[in-house]
Amino acid sequence: MTRATRYDPKRFRALTWFDATAAFADGSDSPRNYLERCLEAVDALEPVVQAFAALNRETARAAADASTTRWKDGKPLSPIDGMPVGIKDLLETKDMPTQLGCAAMTGNFPKNDNAAVWALRQAGAVIFGKTVTAELGGNHPGPTTNPFDPSRTPGGSSSGSAAAVAAGFMPAAIGSQVGGSIIRPAAYCGNFALKPSQGGIHRGERQATSMSTHGPHAGSIEDMWQVAIEVASRCGGDPGRAGIQGPMTTPTAAKPDRLILLETDGWARTDADSHAAMDELLESLRSRGVQILRRGDHPLIESLEQALVGAGDLANTITAWENRWTLRNLIDNRGDGVSERIKARVGVVEALSPDDYRQLLWRRENLRAAWRMLAPLADAFFTFSCPGPAPLWPGDVPGQPLAPRPTGDAVFNTPSSLAGAPAVTIPMLAVNGLPVGVQVMGQEGDDARMTAFARWIHLNIDPVAVG
Amino acid sequence: MTRATRYDPKRFRALTWFDATAAFADGSDSPRNYLERCLEAVDALEPVVQAFAALNRETARAAADASTTRWKDGKPLSPIDGMPVGIKDLLETKDMPTQLGCAAMTGNFPKNDNAAVWALRQAGAVIFGKTVTAELGGNHPGPTTNPFDPSRTPGGSSSGSAAAVAAGFMPAAIGSQVGGSIIRPAAYCGNFALKPSQGGIHRGERQATSMSTHGPHAGSIEDMWQVAIEVASRCGGDPGRAGIQGPMTTPTAAKPDRLILLETDGWARTDADSHAAMDELLESLRSRGVQILRRGDHPLIESLEQALVGAGDLANTITAWENRWTLRNLIDNRGDGVSERIKARVGVVEALSPDDYRQLLWRRENLRAAWRMLAPLADAFFTFSCPGPAPLWPGDVPGQPLAPRPTGDAVFNTPSSLAGAPAVTIPMLAVNGLPVGVQVMGQEGDDARMTAFARWIHLNIDPVAVG
Repeated sequence: MTRATRYDPKRFRALTWFDATAAFADGSDSPRNYLERCLEAVDALEPVVQAFAALNRETARAAADASTTRWKDGKPLSPIDGMPVGIKDLLETKDMPTQLGCAAMTGNFPKNDNAAVWALRQAGAVIFGKTVTAELGGNHPGPTTNPFDPSRTPGGSSSGSAAAVAAGFMPAAIGSQVGGSIIRPAAYCGNFALKPSQGGIHRGERQATSMSTHGPHAGSIEDMWQVAIEVASRCGGDPGRAGIQGPMTTPTAAKPDRLILLETDGWARTDADSHAAMDELLESLRSRGVQILRRGDHPLIESLEQALVGAGDLANTITAWENRWTLRNLIDNRGDGVSERIKARVGVVEALSPDDYRQLLWRRENLRAAWRMLAPLADAFFTFSCPGPAPLWPGDVPGQPLAPRPTGDAVFNTPSSLAGAPAVTIPMLAVNGLPVGVQVMGQEGDDARMTAFARWIHLNIDPVAVG
Repeated sequence: MTRATRYDPKRFRALTWFDATAAFADGSDSPRNYLERCLEAVDALEPVVQAFAALNRETARAAADASTTRWKDGKPLSPIDGMPVGIKDLLETKDMPTQLGCAAMTGNFPKNDNAAVWALRQAGAVIFGKTVTAELGGNHPGPTTNPFDPSRTPGGSSSGSAAAVAAGFMPAAIGSQVGGSIIRPAAYCGNFALKPSQGGIHRGERQATSMSTHGPHAGSIEDMWQVAIEVASRCGGDPGRAGIQGPMTTPTAAKPDRLILLETDGWARTDADSHAAMDELLESLRSRGVQILRRGDHPLIESLEQALVGAGDLANTITAWENRWTLRNLIDNRGDGVSERIKARVGVVEALSPDDYRQLLWRRENLRAAWRMLAPLADAFFTFSCPGPAPLWPGDVPGQPLAPRPTGDAVFNTPSSLAGAPAVTIPMLAVNGLPVGVQVMGQEGDDARMTAFARWIHLNIDPVAVG
């Protein structure tokens, strides 16, 4: 059983929380009832979707009951008090194991709460389950399937978070992105998601790399923002960073006057149907008075496009270098439980020197300079969130070379990761019955502003279905 | 038995490595023999000094034998091939436990190498032992005593690294500093030490805080620099940072033309004898043509001094906030093994909000701005490394309030920590028969430059003994 045979953005109704809480105060509904409906969806769909690495029904029910009492008493801890939230299985949770999608980490159960998990509990959220991650946040996939077609990937590495929201298991889930791990799976699964500015949400124990972030997937932009701000207002940003700030309710929809359309290396890798859908969307934006600027329109846009050539390799190599000791230790100690994909990556990066790494950082600085200098020219960057719908994933074939991108292509995601920039993906396109997201990206610190633009686009522009 | 009843900087001879290796090639000495001499010193003095949290004689001997062969073959891996190096027990080592000076971490043995430890092994160094740290790098002391007076603290939190070098157990050891944990213990123990620029040496698994660094203690400035550059040239800086760069041998001594004498909150807390010694040292510097600028001489120096008022509280609160989830998880899980000092600190910081933290970051930015703006005015900042000699430490008295600073006062160390600036401490003073260090501090990235100035001062200015 799957949720839908074809995704139709005009008819698809994601699970939402923000419009459910009014009934909690008058007792016509409750967080416990809400949770039970989620569990019913899990019972029906999880055998195919396989979004969970761990699920703790009884602690979730106890937390939902406590929340029910608070709402009845008129004293919810926050607007997300009682919200069932999934946690990507890279982040530590004190009441469930943290196994990082990696066989070598089987049974790992540090009984700690990541800073964001701590903040969610402080806000009253129900920590519902651990959602499947691709191995160690890389691209070696777990068992999760795409809720709109089980023969396809849900994307990665936040595979379970994206699929759980799309399957209606929960209104929001925490993902994380180093290269493309929040925005891409969300886009393949028809979710909203925020990849925060670098440092926007405290990463707790996960500080190892210079461009990873934690951020929410959600069925609505309201829930997406509410989760982000409830977390950030409690645990703040990364060490040394101010972190996400902004209104304590969803930012008011704001019309962008000018958007810079970024092609990146992804433009040429995107199928004709998706391009046709994007063309129609851009036309629709123009008809509402939004000016679309692109590489021919301004030399600095061209400069940024050129700085973005090879962005995927650049991002992957920087991160692989930063993870090399962690991965080397893991391989040396428990190599049997580490995939060949990870081993191959470590082998490549161990040939690099600190001077090679410094060169990569300098390329990233170059790119950031062009990104920043374009701030005055337009309100935001705009492009696909993924190069077409989620690809088929039949699994690796024993004896054959490993498939290069089993969780899809992060080509449209590495630019904002490299820039340290906030990105919001919006489910605006359907291509051959599958979701394809589009994203707005801003300058560091523009998280609330990008949410406001995304909200305007979603409210004012009709989604486009092609194929 | 202790190393010396009185410290005399003119007569004290620290253990050195750089001048020992010539004999390794011709076979008149060897890394194995060097190690055995170190082990003899350990056998004689360790019962009182108590510098080690773990010591692995057999793996050290095997590593020294391998190095002996490489030197004989004329193929040492680096100038520090065979050097016995101690590792502060906060950093993971694959062949010894990592217990962080904390009862709650007893038996912790992750069998991983920290990035700096990995780099040291690549350079051929002998990982000799884990050196005692104050609990979790804070100020709750371990058992280590000051090699020049066992009734006094060796300083902290790099207590064991500082004492082991001073006791002649090893020519160099790795320490770490968040507030004052490299420079202060080194100064109390008569060592040279480098607190690198923030991000200067990859911290491996220890990325939790925005102003901690790993750096070497050594008996000579040559060994101090060599360890720093051998490590940094292999593992580089922290994620996103260029890290320490510079010559692959000790920077040439460079005369500073102008030094800014920083008083900080420490000036008023320093005893008269130490001030007398400093006055004599400053006179000696002036007599060699070094101009000393201070707060009355330039308004921006006064601005920096004012920005440094309360620097200790500022640094401690920033770090405590950044560590709050880690510490809260530890206390919740294994509270019996955590000191009351740590618990009290977490209690205070848990009352702070992300907005409070943002205010602290803004104060730090203010201070950094003044620090940077003074760069053109002089070659370096200069001051005490500690407010007088190591204080007596008789231990906490049951039933009495906890002593506030059992490992001494970091008042002269938090400025460079907050500024993210490199600092080199030089053993230039003896006060009442105990070492007192002075330090040069520069701008971020000035690690080699500060080493060059420190080397000039040590070569050209006589040490001063008072009392």
